[in-house]
Amino acid sequence: MFTARHRLELPNLPRLHNPTLQQQLQQRIDQKTKPPGSLGQLEALALQLGLILNTATPAIQQPQIRVFAADHGLTDEGISAFPKAVTQQMVLNFLAGGAAINVFARQHGLTLKVVDAGVDADFAPHPDLLQKKVMRGTRNSLQTAAMNAEECLQAVFCGMALVREAPGNLLVVGEMGIGNTSAASLLLSKLGKLPLDQCIGRGTGLDDAGLAHKQAILEQVLHKHRQVKNPLEILATLGGLEIAMMTGALLQAASERRILLMDGFIACSALLVAEHLQPGIKDFAVFSHASAEPGHRHLLQLLNASPLLDLDLRLGEGTGAVLAYPLLQSALAFLNDMASFTDAGVSEKMP
Amino acid sequence: MFTARHRLELPNLPRLHNPTLQQQLQQRIDQKTKPPGSLGQLEALALQLGLILNTATPAIQQPQIRVFAADHGLTDEGISAFPKAVTQQMVLNFLAGGAAINVFARQHGLTLKVVDAGVDADFAPHPDLLQKKVMRGTRNSLQTAAMNAEECLQAVFCGMALVREAPGNLLVVGEMGIGNTSAASLLLSKLGKLPLDQCIGRGTGLDDAGLAHKQAILEQVLHKHRQVKNPLEILATLGGLEIAMMTGALLQAASERRILLMDGFIACSALLVAEHLQPGIKDFAVFSHASAEPGHRHLLQLLNASPLLDLDLRLGEGTGAVLAYPLLQSALAFLNDMASFTDAGVSEKMP
Repeated sequence: MFTARHRLELPNLPRLHNPTLQQQLQQRIDQKTKPPGSLGQLEALALQLGLILNTATPAIQQPQIRVFAADHGLTDEGISAFPKAVTQQMVLNFLAGGAAINVFARQHGLTLKVVDAGVDADFAPHPDLLQKKVMRGTRNSLQTAAMNAEECLQAVFCGMALVREAPGNLLVVGEMGIGNTSAASLLLSKLGKLPLDQCIGRGTGLDDAGLAHKQAILEQVLHKHRQVKNPLEILATLGGLEIAMMTGALLQAASERRILLMDGFIACSALLVAEHLQPGIKDFAVFSHASAEPGHRHLLQLLNASPLLDLDLRLGEGTGAVLAYPLLQSALAFLNDMASFTDAGVSEKMP
Repeated sequence: MFTARHRLELPNLPRLHNPTLQQQLQQRIDQKTKPPGSLGQLEALALQLGLILNTATPAIQQPQIRVFAADHGLTDEGISAFPKAVTQQMVLNFLAGGAAINVFARQHGLTLKVVDAGVDADFAPHPDLLQKKVMRGTRNSLQTAAMNAEECLQAVFCGMALVREAPGNLLVVGEMGIGNTSAASLLLSKLGKLPLDQCIGRGTGLDDAGLAHKQAILEQVLHKHRQVKNPLEILATLGGLEIAMMTGALLQAASERRILLMDGFIACSALLVAEHLQPGIKDFAVFSHASAEPGHRHLLQLLNASPLLDLDLRLGEGTGAVLAYPLLQSALAFLNDMASFTDAGVSEKMP
């Protein structure tokens, strides 16, 4: 499928290893008027954000959300609790400002744009819609590869280009695509070499029979494509247009030292692909939450992640990431705005 | 100790049980454009906030933080990693705006006042300081009761009065008091009937020897006061002035249908006392986080709590509560601002 002419030039990943800066940040953290370590995971977060943004006084600027929408040929097999038309309907809901991601983005002041990566519908132009449709949904992966090499690369390149054009130093990739938990499960099972039953869940709300059916279908898909080996080919064969575009967006964003504020299972499946293409990209990621979709826990383990929230979320769209966003601001606020022991004349811990 | 003349008139607790309102809220939640239940714990939170505020369109108004500071006679026994003078120094730090709680309160727009419940120092008047000193720290509970009945009741009443004078419908009680994890551990062990080793931890940062010493001292304190039985007497004997004042504040706030946004171990120990005095008050509480202080997990279990965050925080001051505050706003934002399936023309789940 992928031949010599299907080259993916990956943007370089900057080195995060910087002992001098790390020590500087750690000193600033430890001199704040609080028992050492008492802000727990927020302290590790402040350190990570400083290393990503490459400064001892990090600040988030113009945080961006891109919600990537696409349809999935595999929905023909009845693997989702919602009809495929919902992808299109939800894009219109995003553009009208009525979805959960709109509400949370407004609450915290993140800019939201919707990307048509491959919805099986046409949309009128809209200032918040980026028209990047590669095709009207993937093919049914039970019958053939979801994308061919050209389509997959086009999606990845689009994702990169989108980020090059976006301002800011923090990116949330969200998604909407009926059927895309199935694509994420397939990617996780294949790339993570995990048994499928550890990778699947109820998605938007399958019942027991629906879940059993989904498992049977996905087993067949994996069997059919068992020869596929390299990460890009796996992405093309089993993934989705939104997942491929998110993969490109993450690769580009990390190369520009943007913070990757990760959402749930599907966004993280794109990061898993990216990590296989560009090892080390996961260190640019802040994991916002552990989702209720069971495969996400295994995916987080593979990525060595310590998620900030664990609220049984399973909505996608980028919502978990935006819900966790104020914690990043808090980490930077304590780092930049708290008094030190010396400033405040507070006694340090007894020796 | 407590006689007939030491009466505590408890303010009435309103009933939260309201099936009509509950159904109305649940319907609003389920009609939002998202898979049913997909906002996880945020959905339960939206329901709870609606029931507390007694409306299907709940909104938080003028959220208040009160940080209660006091000293502890038991610090004479060397049970803290920080010197006692830090209580006073941190009060000044709060008033100067340099502590973690100041930073997070500013970030999220909560009003912060510091309450001198019983610091062993005098403070110049300050617009953000409420002078309610009962005495200059508790007595050493290894030798005698920390407070007598009058002192304890005065603290509880002060806490109630403070809240009556405060605006808003959400209260965070924070605390500062070197030695107060010991007081909280004693209260938890006694009221929760738990072995002391499940109730203690390193506080602001004791090493192994310090922890062993703390455990030995607290065992002696519990043994000395083993006859003490009723909750108020336990509070007076083992607690602290800030804990007693927080107890009063929580009792009053719940009686006025304010949301009790709980912080960590010490704030929750005050809620445990309040729950023994006024069973059911815990239903007015939102538990912001599970702290790194080991006793907090057991305390949360006793209170049947599902905390929102689990970030290894152990700072106190109310910081965990304020870090979780935007999640409450998110719960209300989705409830009030998201489009319904009908509004947005989005298909519901397939039958």
